[in-house]
Amino acid sequence: MRFLSDNAATVHPRVWEALRLADGVDTPYDGDHYSQRLDEAFGELFGREVAVLWVATGTAANCLALSAMVPPHGGVVCHEEAHIEMDEGGAPGFYLHGAKLMLAQGEGAKLTPDAIRAVIDPIRDDVHQVQPHAISVTQASEYGRAYRPEELNAIGAFAQERGLGLHVDGARFGNAVAFLGCSPAEAVGPAQALSFGCVKNGAMNAEAIVFFDPALADSVRYRRKRAGHLQSKGRFLAAQLLAMLEGDLWLENARAANAAAQAIVAEASERLLHPVEANEVFMRLTPPEREALREQGYHFYDWGENAARLVASWDSDQEAARALGQAIASL
Amino acid sequence: MRFLSDNAATVHPRVWEALRLADGVDTPYDGDHYSQRLDEAFGELFGREVAVLWVATGTAANCLALSAMVPPHGGVVCHEEAHIEMDEGGAPGFYLHGAKLMLAQGEGAKLTPDAIRAVIDPIRDDVHQVQPHAISVTQASEYGRAYRPEELNAIGAFAQERGLGLHVDGARFGNAVAFLGCSPAEAVGPAQALSFGCVKNGAMNAEAIVFFDPALADSVRYRRKRAGHLQSKGRFLAAQLLAMLEGDLWLENARAANAAAQAIVAEASERLLHPVEANEVFMRLTPPEREALREQGYHFYDWGENAARLVASWDSDQEAARALGQAIASL
Amino acid sequence: MRFLSDNAATVHPRVWEALRLADGVDTPYDGDHYSQRLDEAFGELFGREVAVLWVATGTAANCLALSAMVPPHGGVVCHEEAHIEMDEGGAPGFYLHGAKLMLAQGEGAKLTPDAIRAVIDPIRDDVHQVQPHAISVTQASEYGRAYRPEELNAIGAFAQERGLGLHVDGARFGNAVAFLGCSPAEAVGPAQALSFGCVKNGAMNAEAIVFFDPALADSVRYRRKRAGHLQSKGRFLAAQLLAMLEGDLWLENARAANAAAQAIVAEASERLLHPVEANEVFMRLTPPEREALREQGYHFYDWGENAARLVASWDSDQEAARALGQAIASL
Amino acid sequence: MRFLSDNAATVHPRVWEALRLADGVDTPYDGDHYSQRLDEAFGELFGREVAVLWVATGTAANCLALSAMVPPHGGVVCHEEAHIEMDEGGAPGFYLHGAKLMLAQGEGAKLTPDAIRAVIDPIRDDVHQVQPHAISVTQASEYGRAYRPEELNAIGAFAQERGLGLHVDGARFGNAVAFLGCSPAEAVGPAQALSFGCVKNGAMNAEAIVFFDPALADSVRYRRKRAGHLQSKGRFLAAQLLAMLEGDLWLENARAANAAAQAIVAEASERLLHPVEANEVFMRLTPPEREALREQGYHFYDWGENAARLVASWDSDQEAARALGQAIASL
Repeated sequence: MRFLSDNAATVHPRVWEALRLADGVDTPYDGDHYSQRLDEAFGELFGREVAVLWVATGTAANCLALSAMVPPHGGVVCHEEAHIEMDEGGAPGFYLHGAKLMLAQGEGAKLTPDAIRAVIDPIRDDVHQVQPHAISVTQASEYGRAYRPEELNAIGAFAQERGLGLHVDGARFGNAVAFLGCSPAEAVGPAQALSFGCVKNGAMNAEAIVFFDPALADSVRYRRKRAGHLQSKGRFLAAQLLAMLEGDLWLENARAANAAAQAIVAEASERLLHPVEANEVFMRLTPPEREALREQGYHFYDWGENAARLVASWDSDQEAARALGQAIASL
Repeated sequence: MRFLSDNAATVHPRVWEALRLADGVDTPYDGDHYSQRLDEAFGELFGREVAVLWVATGTAANCLALSAMVPPHGGVVCHEEAHIEMDEGGAPGFYLHGAKLMLAQGEGAKLTPDAIRAVIDPIRDDVHQVQPHAISVTQASEYGRAYRPEELNAIGAFAQERGLGLHVDGARFGNAVAFLGCSPAEAVGPAQALSFGCVKNGAMNAEAIVFFDPALADSVRYRRKRAGHLQSKGRFLAAQLLAMLEGDLWLENARAANAAAQAIVAEASERLLHPVEANEVFMRLTPPEREALREQGYHFYDWGENAARLVASWDSDQEAARALGQAIASL
Repeated sequence: MRFLSDNAATVHPRVWEALRLADGVDTPYDGDHYSQRLDEAFGELFGREVAVLWVATGTAANCLALSAMVPPHGGVVCHEEAHIEMDEGGAPGFYLHGAKLMLAQGEGAKLTPDAIRAVIDPIRDDVHQVQPHAISVTQASEYGRAYRPEELNAIGAFAQERGLGLHVDGARFGNAVAFLGCSPAEAVGPAQALSFGCVKNGAMNAEAIVFFDPALADSVRYRRKRAGHLQSKGRFLAAQLLAMLEGDLWLENARAANAAAQAIVAEASERLLHPVEANEVFMRLTPPEREALREQGYHFYDWGENAARLVASWDSDQEAARALGQAIASL
Repeated sequence: MRFLSDNAATVHPRVWEALRLADGVDTPYDGDHYSQRLDEAFGELFGREVAVLWVATGTAANCLALSAMVPPHGGVVCHEEAHIEMDEGGAPGFYLHGAKLMLAQGEGAKLTPDAIRAVIDPIRDDVHQVQPHAISVTQASEYGRAYRPEELNAIGAFAQERGLGLHVDGARFGNAVAFLGCSPAEAVGPAQALSFGCVKNGAMNAEAIVFFDPALADSVRYRRKRAGHLQSKGRFLAAQLLAMLEGDLWLENARAANAAAQAIVAEASERLLHPVEANEVFMRLTPPEREALREQGYHFYDWGENAARLVASWDSDQEAARALGQAIASL
């Protein structure tokens, strides 16, 4: 039973079906019938005009989105444990041509206006110090915490006040929306761009960059090609994204993953390091305890010396999740 | 009947089957069972030790391969009509951090040692001029011409003499091998790296970077991640590549495409701009002639004012190709 | 007698004097009293509002100026023998983060709207091809030819029509103005930025980037620092520039250099490869002829197999120049 | 009386003299007689073979030195208050093409092997995290603290053990050597490269990059040109450096600056935030106290809310320094 990560989970049958149907004659790159429908489909989801580009990975989505907001001599404020800082192999440095990540602190890997101020207020307004140009937050955060709409609004108001762009890394956006029970628009707040994650949520290899300021997409179309991310059979990426939106599969899958996470938690909540507001569970577990669980066939990552990260995905078996929770409770 | 390009052709049934089979529980990124078999599978194909990385596009394959050979202050010699120069949106500039493409001339978009000399011999050996560090050739070339093994050996010997790396853009490598009737090893010559194209040859979205100098792959693993090209469900890329190798599907598909191209040519060879040594046909066709063909339902790209490019693919209908050839002959 | 280049000529006594006077207590970087006067001084010279930044080299001046006009995914049209293409060690690739130089042809290393059209009109307006964002011309050109005001106006009008920026590399701007006998404003035409060269014209190590669109300077201030070109004792650069402007020393020096060049030409004009419109003389001279001149103590660069480049500078001895001309005539 | 910084101090008479003498006919760039003597002159100073390149600024020196050690996908460990992190406008991101600064902590802005370990040991050895390739330390540090030879040896041994390069930012290297009373070789330890600062120590605009591994200089020669830092009248930079070495002027000037700093400290040492081991004095001073000093004509920078930074330079008046110390004592 694997609770290692949601990033290698299986592909949902409806995504497979969409892939199959997309395999006809069509225009290459993003000239196909599927790609052409993305702006409208995501526009409906968010209730406003958007420009949408597909890419194969979340790293590309995040960095391309930020490239529209941050010049090479600028900076991006993010949490010190943000994915773009910790897990993207320096991709922001590559895509932003050496721009700087400015690391803020905050509980549960979440930012607040105060946390951002603590980073940027000491920056002298001169050419000797890199100036911030954007803020990037992760919804749900790297510790599985969801920003409430009012929290995003506060960050967005602060960003606007300071003339900063706002990007949301939504690798697990569906999980956040499923938890919050709000609209997708509320869950992204006043951001200019969202990396709308699908790979961790039932897709094969397609993510959407959603620009709420459609003009930002203009240069990113060039940058996507320049980064080698404009696939010639783009219909297969677009079809995945449309399948995820169709009948709100993205939300359905996220709910299933969240439910499995809650099933783990149910009987062992006292071990939690963080409230579970998505599909990731961080629990205190000693090395011998982890060993015992692994002997029972459970797979997961260690998280430091005395904890573990357990991640449920859309295809997690709810019974297995419950059993894992019970196994933990029985340690 | 589409003869626009092979880059958006359908996916071969055996690739579909491999994709389906790959959708089980496995390790993310390139830790899966499929990715782990690539070095061996390609090593058998080429008869020597290789290191193989998958990526989703030819642009990424070309640029990542070159990034292992060329420092930011260096240059790459390529044909003035090479794909990396003409059609990759400046990706070499991005991946090589501003390194320079040095444009050589040559019939049929092919290079020769003399053509390369003409470009690099005038370069003064001082810091004021960018120095060449590698050569990139395309097999088959952008005009569908195949390098003979002895031609590649001559370029390779020249490269070695000058201390330059040698990269082969093999977006249509299979088509070249099918035409040449030689071994894959002979068709790539003494290159250090090959972009082994599959997308134009029946795959969905997987290309292989084959390093014949395996040490070159070391830094490229980091660069691939940094470019956002390390997909988490990498098994789906590796599975495509293995399916292409299995039973030499890559060669079978290339032969089918080449045969369709020859079927077009058969009755209208006097119109050819270039000998057809792969699956691309460049023919003299006036605007009224092109119009007439389009009215008969044929799709293709104009090539300048009085010519057209007709590209066959693995799934081209041989009868339709023959009919197109006859339609041209009847103009 | 050295006619190798003007780039290593001596420093003019009035520049030395200005350097000496600048060595008092002052604010670092460009906060000093000298730097603060640059906008006004150059504004008077050009008869309009400008923003001026000093840097130590022409390469930095050119590339920083262009960085304000061209995004990393864009291109710059320049002559195929432009200094930025031939002699700056790939600096545009570095400063523009991989943007592309698009090489045009033209007699005397000069561009025309037609020559630019020949390069950019074939570029498809899609993401697969790098799009032009600016034009860079050299006044006087790399072959010592001066753009007439109406030629610059034509290029400027074309640039505006196509939405392209216009940069003038004025490494020898003074020589062009001295030749043209027009105002500096006329000699730069409707450019947004000028690299106003001083090093080849009597300064020690200071060039001015003059932004006729002052807003362009905003990001360049950051980029200059980021490139390590913001010297802490900037007063010494600013003082050089002010000394060059004072009493039109820049024009006086340029006239002296031009006169020396004409003295060379006077008796041997039939050997000229290019009309002499600045301080550079390109002449047909066979290897034995060059050898003979060198034996007489003249230093200059070979220019290909049967020619030479002779460059006069502000401190060239007019008699020596005349003597060289006579020596050539006597060959 | 200015104690703002040493970075805008006057130019030493012997440097002026050397500049004057250098203004004859010579080869451009670094082909002149002065530049050609640098390797030998610095080789004697450090007692071993070195390769030396001049540049105009410390930022360029630091970043070019690091560019020889760190690939674009790598990282550099430095102190969180290091100049390259805090005060170079993101230049490392530019010169290293997006490589990452990895910030370590340590008293007095100094690093130790333990402090470095704390940063790099948690880095997973996989492609998802940027890997360290070099360490950069500042001698004397940003808080005016000097590394003892044994401290540098320990860092060097650690660097070697981990396969990391070692760079020393010696913007105030002379001040450190003057304080330590050791040889220059001991004060730089087993580094591969040193930014040997002169601008803060009596020069006008020349710094030396000293490569103790001469092979590292090979690519940096290209990178220097590419960054627009290869001045054509390089003789003026080389002459400054040689003047600084001649008769150990660098050491004499540094001693004078250190002595002035000690004169400030002498009567007010209880206010010190850091031991004074160079020419920088960090003292507790409340806003009213700072105001009182400024009314007496002293200029300096505030350092946070209740402190100030007082920097002496080679040309500081020793009496004025003593008077400032007394003024502080009298507050």
